[in-house]
Parts: sequence; C-alpha cells; structure tokens
Amino acid sequence: MNIGVFGLGSMGFGMATTAVAAGFTVYGFDPNKDAVSRFVSAGGKQAIPRDVIEILDVVVVVVINAHEFAKAMERRCSGHGINYLDAPISGGSVKAAAGQLTIMASGKPMAFTQTDTLLNALSEKVFKLGDEAGPGSAMKVVNQLLAGVHIAAAAEAITFGVGQGISPTQCVEVISQCAGTSWMFENRGPHIADGDYTPHSSVEIFVKDLGIVSDIARQSRFAAPIAATALQQFVAASGMGLGAEDDSAVAKVYALQAGLSLPGDKL
Amino acid sequence: MNIGVFGLGSMGFGMATTAVAAGFTVYGFDPNKDAVSRFVSAGGKQAIPRDVIEILDVVVVVVINAHEFAKAMERRCSGHGINYLDAPISGGSVKAAAGQLTIMASGKPMAFTQTDTLLNALSEKVFKLGDEAGPGSAMKVVNQLLAGVHIAAAAEAITFGVGQGISPTQCVEVISQCAGTSWMFENRGPHIADGDYTPHSSVEIFVKDLGIVSDIARQSRFAAPIAATALQQFVAASGMGLGAEDDSAVAKVYALQAGLSLPGDKL
Repeated sequence: MNIGVFGLGSMGFGMATTAVAAGFTVYGFDPNKDAVSRFVSAGGKQAIPRDVIEILDVVVVVVINAHEFAKAMERRCSGHGINYLDAPISGGSVKAAAGQLTIMASGKPMAFTQTDTLLNALSEKVFKLGDEAGPGSAMKVVNQLLAGVHIAAAAEAITFGVGQGISPTQCVEVISQCAGTSWMFENRGPHIADGDYTPHSSVEIFVKDLGIVSDIARQSRFAAPIAATALQQFVAASGMGLGAEDDSAVAKVYALQAGLSLPGDKL
Repeated sequence: MNIGVFGLGSMGFGMATTAVAAGFTVYGFDPNKDAVSRFVSAGGKQAIPRDVIEILDVVVVVVINAHEFAKAMERRCSGHGINYLDAPISGGSVKAAAGQLTIMASGKPMAFTQTDTLLNALSEKVFKLGDEAGPGSAMKVVNQLLAGVHIAAAAEAITFGVGQGISPTQCVEVISQCAGTSWMFENRGPHIADGDYTPHSSVEIFVKDLGIVSDIARQSRFAAPIAATALQQFVAASGMGLGAEDDSAVAKVYALQAGLSLPGDKL
C-alpha cells in the first residue's frame, strides 16, 4: 500500500517513519527540504506530488488544524470520488514516533475501511466518533481547550509554588502523585523544572489553538472564561517574545509578573 | 498503639477505618453522632476526648484546612512537648478508605518517627518535604489550585463539547485517552456524564480552597488569573444554590449560561 504524508513536522515525521517501519511505502512531502532529507534517510521516499498522486492509496495530511476545515474538505473530496476521514491526533511527538497516538476519527464507513491498517499502525487507540466529518475535529478542539488550560495552570501552580518556597523539581515530583496532576502537568512540568524551553510544541501553537476555542465559543455563545484566561497568558508569552519557545515558557509570564526566578530563566 | 482521629468526614472516616484494619486501636471523634456510630460499627472506639487523651500515642486531625494553621499549631504543640506533623493528604475518599492516600508531610524528625507506621498504613506514598511545619501545607495549596482549576476546566470542556454535538459520555471516554486529560477530569467527568451530583467533595470546598489560593496569591503579589477565574465559577455555582452538590456541579453554571442541557440537569 502506497501512503503519502503531507507535513513532516514534529507529529507528521514520527507518523511517516512509523508507517515506514510498519511496511508501507511512504512518500513524504514538506516545504522544509531538511525534513524531507531526514525522512529519506529514515527509509522514506521523496517525489513531486503530481508524479505519484495517482499511485497513492491513502494521503495523510498532518498540517496545522483549523475549525470547519474537516467538513469543507469532506465535501470537496467527495466531488472527486475521494473518501475523507476527519482524524485529528493526540499524544505529542514522542507517541507519534512510537505509533502510540490516540486518533479521534469520524467519516464515511469506506473512509474507515480504506485507512484501517494504517490507522492501527499509527495509533494505540482509534475512536470512531461518527459517519461524517466534524465530530473528530470537534473532539480535538475540546482536547485542545483542556490541554492549553492545563499547561497554563501547571505554569501558574509551579511558579506560585516557587513564591511559597517550593522548588519546581519538588513540585513536579509531588503533584504528579496527587489529585492535582494532569497529563500536561507531568509532560511540561519537567521542562519548567529543568529550565529547558526547547520547543516540542511552541507557545504560538496555543495562541492559535486556544484562539480557535475562543472563536468557536464566542460564535456559539458559550462563555468559556477559563480557556479565555489561559489564552491571554499564551498571548502575553508571545508578546514577550517567547512565541517560538516551548509552550511551557508561559511560566515566564507568571515569574516576571511576580518578580520570581525560575530555573534557567534569564528574563 | 492508640490513635485518635478527629474528624470522621469523607476523608477522616476512611483513614480511621483503614487504621482499624491495620491493627491500631482507633478512637474516632466527630460532632456528627451518625458518623461516630458508623465508625463504632466498623470496629472503631468511641470516647469523650478528655477520658482518653492521655493514652493516645498519635492524634490525627482531619478537618477543613486553613492557611498558616500548620505553623501556628506546631508552635502551640511544641509548648506542650507534643510533636506536630504538617501532613496534608490527597487522593479523595475512595483512596482514603483504601489506605492509598498521598501524604505531603513536613515536621521535626521525631514527628516523622512517631507517626511512621501509621502514615505507611494510611498511604501509598509519603513525601517528606522539610523538617518544620509549612512546606506540607504549601504543597497542598498548590495541589488545590490545580485540582480546582482542573474540575472547572473539565466542566467547561465537557459542556462546550455538548454545544458542539459531543455527548458527555463520549467526551469523557475519548479525552481520558488524550493529552487533555487530568486526574480530576477522569474522576469528576463521569459525574457530569451520569448527571449524578451526589457530593463526594462539594462545591463549597472549592469556594473555600480556591479562596485560600487567591488570598495567598494576592498577599504574596502573585497574579493567578486562572485560579481566580475558576474560583468565580465555583462562587457562581454556590450562588445558584448548588453549594452542597458535588463540585462537578460547576458544569451547571456553564450549561445555564449557554442554554444547554446536561444529563440529569433539572435547572
């Protein structure tokens, strides 16, 4: 089976190499030539899209998400006799590379049938959320609401703890074992404790994703004050020039506003 | 070893019965006579405090927390030759009853020595956070900041999902497997999905606990906008007359404000 993966970023690259390891023939496409070279070194194939598009059985598009994209794409694909699966992913780059993603999928039964073996290779769990595009993307937006709030809350709590005499390392160690923990706290907390803001996922991603949440919430007349507040913290981080740093750098907003120091913080 | 447990509420009762099961002689004290009767039925002992206080080796006080209580108590106990351990707990009533709490403790070495076997019986993990009262309580405040924010965020996300056509049951099932999950999401989400607001921990507890967080934050000039926003949602829930319901009833604030229905919601 021939697979095309469009987008070899932190998620797409891991998914593409996982598909290679699972025995698929995989063509990788990305405007970033370095990413394509690395993919070829990892056993992937390189081509101009129009040269191979006819032989691709499944095309995986791993690009920045946007609300309503899924429904519009399903309509557009349908006009060309192509089955579209609305299949957002969750789990981060490490799980993407390990074939352990969670996939929130919705689409026509044929779209599921055609992608079945590939989805199983890429993921630990595939949720089937409906027989048309839409619910997959909607669930992803709900997930991003929580993910963004939890990162900002982790930053708020860890920095608050610093002001109370608790070291970030101790805070991460203890809270991870308590009812206050979250997936994001355990994943991003160590970045703050280590003072390492090498971007796995950047501040700008949550300016975008919580922006999408806030746009949808406003349009649907849903008051989402916690998501709105968390968004402002990422906006402030970006405004401070931290947009390209790891999203956990939102902690620096709190530290700056409270006159506190964090590990590795040179602000 | 003779133990006295003051406070037989949702946490204290489980801890007291766990201590009984571990072979300690346990006296339970509570103004609620029903709780004391249930404790006696479960193998505990009942007495007037002044009749037994001389034979108690360890006294466990499981009452509503308040900031700075720990340091003042340590000073006061010290004047009477009593060793005080600042030992907040986390895990909820189910883990309390199973002897699987997380304990965040700080205090003099003698206070740890004297309570060692008891703490091990009550908990899965004891963190030793320092040799005087204070850090234990401070860590608990950090934990409550996150716990309260995560409950309100879970309510916000699940109700937002309802507006996007996602059922609370499906939301809880999927998000629990995604990066947006939290301990509180997995614990309280099912209450919302089931429409069951029987209080395990009530809305008023988080009006209090996030109130403590906000008081400390303001006094220490630490801007904590996410905790402050979450607090307002619990305040609104209490203002709607939901103070005695399970804290997950904060979801009803969101539903009411958006004209949405939740399972079992009669508002």
